[in-house]
Amino acid sequence: MLIMRKVYLDHAATTPVHPKVLEAMLPYFTTAFGNPSNLHDVGREAKNAVEEARAKTALLIGSKPEEIIFTASGAESNNFALKGLAQANSQKGKHIIVSQIEHFSILHTAKGLEKAGFTVTYVPTDKQGIVDPHDVAKAITKETILVSIMHANNEIGTIEPIEEIGKITKEKGVLFHTDAVATTGWIPVNVQALGVDALSLSGHQFYGPKGAAALYVRKGVRIKPQLEGGIQEDGRRAGTENVPALVGLGKAAELAAAEIPNRMSYLAPLRDRLQKGLMEKIDHMVINGHPTQRLPHNLNVSMWFVEGESMLLFLNMEGISISSGSACTSRSLKSSHVLTCIGTDAAVANGTLLLSLGMGNSAEDIDYVIEKLPPIVQRLREMSPLYEDMLKKEKVK
Amino acid sequence: MLIMRKVYLDHAATTPVHPKVLEAMLPYFTTAFGNPSNLHDVGREAKNAVEEARAKTALLIGSKPEEIIFTASGAESNNFALKGLAQANSQKGKHIIVSQIEHFSILHTAKGLEKAGFTVTYVPTDKQGIVDPHDVAKAITKETILVSIMHANNEIGTIEPIEEIGKITKEKGVLFHTDAVATTGWIPVNVQALGVDALSLSGHQFYGPKGAAALYVRKGVRIKPQLEGGIQEDGRRAGTENVPALVGLGKAAELAAAEIPNRMSYLAPLRDRLQKGLMEKIDHMVINGHPTQRLPHNLNVSMWFVEGESMLLFLNMEGISISSGSACTSRSLKSSHVLTCIGTDAAVANGTLLLSLGMGNSAEDIDYVIEKLPPIVQRLREMSPLYEDMLKKEKVK
Repeated sequence: MLIMRKVYLDHAATTPVHPKVLEAMLPYFTTAFGNPSNLHDVGREAKNAVEEARAKTALLIGSKPEEIIFTASGAESNNFALKGLAQANSQKGKHIIVSQIEHFSILHTAKGLEKAGFTVTYVPTDKQGIVDPHDVAKAITKETILVSIMHANNEIGTIEPIEEIGKITKEKGVLFHTDAVATTGWIPVNVQALGVDALSLSGHQFYGPKGAAALYVRKGVRIKPQLEGGIQEDGRRAGTENVPALVGLGKAAELAAAEIPNRMSYLAPLRDRLQKGLMEKIDHMVINGHPTQRLPHNLNVSMWFVEGESMLLFLNMEGISISSGSACTSRSLKSSHVLTCIGTDAAVANGTLLLSLGMGNSAEDIDYVIEKLPPIVQRLREMSPLYEDMLKKEKVK
Repeated sequence: MLIMRKVYLDHAATTPVHPKVLEAMLPYFTTAFGNPSNLHDVGREAKNAVEEARAKTALLIGSKPEEIIFTASGAESNNFALKGLAQANSQKGKHIIVSQIEHFSILHTAKGLEKAGFTVTYVPTDKQGIVDPHDVAKAITKETILVSIMHANNEIGTIEPIEEIGKITKEKGVLFHTDAVATTGWIPVNVQALGVDALSLSGHQFYGPKGAAALYVRKGVRIKPQLEGGIQEDGRRAGTENVPALVGLGKAAELAAAEIPNRMSYLAPLRDRLQKGLMEKIDHMVINGHPTQRLPHNLNVSMWFVEGESMLLFLNMEGISISSGSACTSRSLKSSHVLTCIGTDAAVANGTLLLSLGMGNSAEDIDYVIEKLPPIVQRLREMSPLYEDMLKKEKVK
């Protein structure tokens, strides 16, 4: 029997847990299973493990350990940052600035804050998904307390000019949060260099386990707890610590700190090979996002005259796992708000694939996708009346 | 070398993960690591695993699978229940009733809702920790929208008359939530029998993993999401599902559903043996909570003339892990609000031990504690001037 090649190109949705990460986690399920709040040895062992994980996570992003608040997901970190910082600082003003291409855990939370009496400015991006720092500067008023702009967009991969925005917010005395869920573990993330007051990251995005994430909050910055009723995380987030998952996050952070240069130098050429291969074989295909200021493992393409979900299903039959966009909205069947923001035509946006590479992908995997995807696109296009029209028009020319 | 016996009597703080639970979880870290929101096979496998876990969790508490919202902790479930139900139903009224012995994830959240314009009645208990259903009935006004009374108290183990309260709330058309974090997996918990509209449970409390918990919400009951920005959990809780942990929760629920009668019949006699042994050897010791209407694995005792934390440290040196009360407040050094509510003198409350048994404890373990604890108490008392005074007074008699 022929075994079909399996190619997972959906690392933006989630990554497998690194074997070393799982190995580090295992003792904390069964033998060292204690509750870190307990004073006896079983508890203390768990407490030490959590604090070691906190130190490793801090080291990855250049913060102090006590500036790390562990949470259970990137979505929770983003909700916490926006609500917690807004609520704790509302005596200074009630205006917030976010970009139009933020993850929905920022955008929907911002909408919620609008209902609670805050006002929100949604700054646009250019056609490549870049937020203009001048737009942020112009939007800041005396009422502004918080700016939240993502480090890189999770769909199109565009890396935002966070350092420049950080200088502006610092000068204006406004808090600055960045959603670094898509970048942490893939490119350098340093809170000092970025000049941010708060930063979200999530373990399962870079070979750590699901259920372990963090919010960095600069020392001295006030944040209102959203989960009340426990002494955990210095009273800022109630709930028994998920010890094994946090140990896994710490290990993933340690691995990332050592491997990021390798990851970047391995993945960017592989992604470029994929991009080049597809471009050569598929016409009427658009690359979304910035050509260079982009995550090394991200490729987001839109094809004319074809529907993304059909492509996914045919690719799946070939053993290839790819998404059409953000996993968090995949079942909503709406056009991506990110593609809308960068001006992609709705019909074209429907033919979008988000291909996100990982360290487990080989050049052979990439070539397999370059071989399999173009005929699928062609077959689907042949069923499209719009494609037929287009071909006729081209012939007339 | 002599190996010291290790006795863990802190199952109320957390339990080890059952080997079968860990076994069920393992594939979902590395091979079946997908994001359930993805449409390809890797995602679908994860999605199926989560839905199977949901069905098993539902089965344990007699609910429909679609009535289970997965969360990351009991604290999150309690926060979600109180805020989510209050906010979604505030057009009907803004009055809430809770008991004075609820977990802080209910009490602190209730305080937060007071600041947001709700009013809260805190009903007392009797000396054994029982809430009088008539007190709840009397407290209900036209403005009341929600009652939250815990199924059993996590410190003193007293089981509340939830069925009776449920009849009252149903008759009055008021929503009823119960915090069943301390009971699920140890005694039967059935949402139909209890007559509740919402119920919190947590995996690590009954041999499941940390980071996996649930909130049951009866079909048709409106609840406002607290984590916004994702399609997960039917749009009611954003964040990538913690697949392995949820699979573990499902397996723990499946095991509990089969084993609860065995657990009860094994643990209650063992607990009684412990209680009897300690009573015989230690004078001036009080049993807290209800003598019979109590969790089978719970023993909460207060000793006069001795300080709980010192006992813990000496016990720890003997390999015995015990807490002085709730893990979630263990480092706050305040007297337990539960003991205060049932009328325990503050000086006596300081000498409290919460001994919570589990299926890994043997009769030999129990006898070891009965052997080791009394001399520790005696030694500590000999250092107490209050104890000396008491002895003198007794001699005078």
